Amino acid sequence: MSFSEVLARDAAAIEARLMAALEGRAEVPVVQAMRYALRGGKRLRGFLVLEGARMHGLPDAQAISAAAAVEALHAYSLVHDDLPCMDDDDLRRGQPTVHVKWDEATAVLAGDALQTLAFELLADPALGSGDVRIALVSGLARASGAEGMVLGQALDIAAETAVAPLTLEDITALQAGKTGALIRWSAEAGAVIAGADPAPLRAYAEKLGLAFQIWDDVLDVEGDVAKTGKRLQKDADAGKATFVSLLGLDAAKARAGALIDAAAGHLSPYGARAVNLIACARFVISREM
Amino acid sequence: MSFSEVLARDAAAIEARLMAALEGRAEVPVVQAMRYALRGGKRLRGFLVLEGARMHGLPDAQAISAAAAVEALHAYSLVHDDLPCMDDDDLRRGQPTVHVKWDEATAVLAGDALQTLAFELLADPALGSGDVRIALVSGLARASGAEGMVLGQALDIAAETAVAPLTLEDITALQAGKTGALIRWSAEAGAVIAGADPAPLRAYAEKLGLAFQIWDDVLDVEGDVAKTGKRLQKDADAGKATFVSLLGLDAAKARAGALIDAAAGHLSPYGARAVNLIACARFVISREM
Repeated sequence: MSFSEVLARDAAAIEARLMAALEGRAEVPVVQAMRYALRGGKRLRGFLVLEGARMHGLPDAQAISAAAAVEALHAYSLVHDDLPCMDDDDLRRGQPTVHVKWDEATAVLAGDALQTLAFELLADPALGSGDVRIALVSGLARASGAEGMVLGQALDIAAETAVAPLTLEDITALQAGKTGALIRWSAEAGAVIAGADPAPLRAYAEKLGLAFQIWDDVLDVEGDVAKTGKRLQKDADAGKATFVSLLGLDAAKARAGALIDAAAGHLSPYGARAVNLIACARFVISREM
Repeated sequence: MSFSEVLARDAAAIEARLMAALEGRAEVPVVQAMRYALRGGKRLRGFLVLEGARMHGLPDAQAISAAAAVEALHAYSLVHDDLPCMDDDDLRRGQPTVHVKWDEATAVLAGDALQTLAFELLADPALGSGDVRIALVSGLARASGAEGMVLGQALDIAAETAVAPLTLEDITALQAGKTGALIRWSAEAGAVIAGADPAPLRAYAEKLGLAFQIWDDVLDVEGDVAKTGKRLQKDADAGKATFVSLLGLDAAKARAGALIDAAAGHLSPYGARAVNLIACARFVISREM
């Protein structure tokens, strides 16, 4: 099975788990908006959870709720990020954003409930002992809160009104929070569930997360709106410093490539079992969306 | 020690735990807004956690992170509730609301991070085994998500544009989610931490939560803005049905009183140990804020 086939299969399994979690809920707009926000996407974070678990010999059924949890958390962050008071985006994956299709109040509440859903999913007994599940909860809270993702988003907003443009060091720190922390949690989760040492996967994820963000900046300049499904040239229009504006396009691509090589190197303890994660790393810097 | 002294002492301990949780964080506006949103309030939910734990012989130090967690979660719900797209309130506890003092983006992010903080606090090993902590996580997620608090808020918003005014049954169901679910989790938490049967505390909390909301409707009509620290007559101005508009003021007060008597009755298994929870129930329908 090729990497893209694995990714598509995992994405379908994760979406099924998410829809099952919302089955039987009241048919109110906020729940419909949650389902809408949970549809589609590459499910890269969820794939990392499932693949990390498989590399430790665990069945997908044991890890699927953790994969669904991180995708619920990611979906919440996108719904709130798209709000008029944040990035003010009308389009996400080629579809109207939640506050456009419903309204702002529904988008705030749906995002709130998607975050809650993430933690609810981590309580699934299939994931393992209480200690394992609470370790996942604790890690996801630290990765996504005011020391992780939300801190990164706050720094990103502050950058828009900053007097001095961000340096490469600033952007690297910002992205380590904004996208890096959640990618790291995802890559480590399989090892946490298996009770194994998460250090190699953490090292892999740190390089992967940074390469991922550099490539997002490349796509913001070079991407095709029909393929990415979102507004492009946003950063240039806003006069924001990015990896591309600071390094130049060619050097940014070279930096991403070097990070991917380093990421793959950290997986040597896993030998041939790392094949899908190495393919994933290459995918991150060749994707068109 | 009188009930009001116990409440004040617990409120101070809970605030100290919340401030300790945010120590050492980056001094960015979102973290400052989190601290601001966490200050003040009666801490009734946190008191219920601590008192429930004491009734089972547990020291405050064991339960304090759960008390802080529910207050963080409550604070998140207030910050998001006050947003212009939701209730659009400028004043909370006599102070400018977060989006007025900072801006909407900071209020969205601070609320998001306060929810995350709640789950992070429940990972505190002092609370007990992994199984105990994950039971608290699972319960709080269900109480606060799209089947609990957020569902109640969504129904409340829908009521504003509903063609037919809400019935007493509708409002009771709405409030069971909006405020009842979190009060119930709070009252049960001590029993969950102690591994005891939470049924008597749950029955107490269901009556208490409903009486609490009836009294909020009474205060919305009879309250003093200087004491409540918030805008009053909101529901009447919005033409929304409330317990007071449906029952009349005297009958609403009588209903609340009967609920409080029933709540106290459910605590008979605890005998004299229930004295503070009974005082709390009486406080709920005599408070001026």
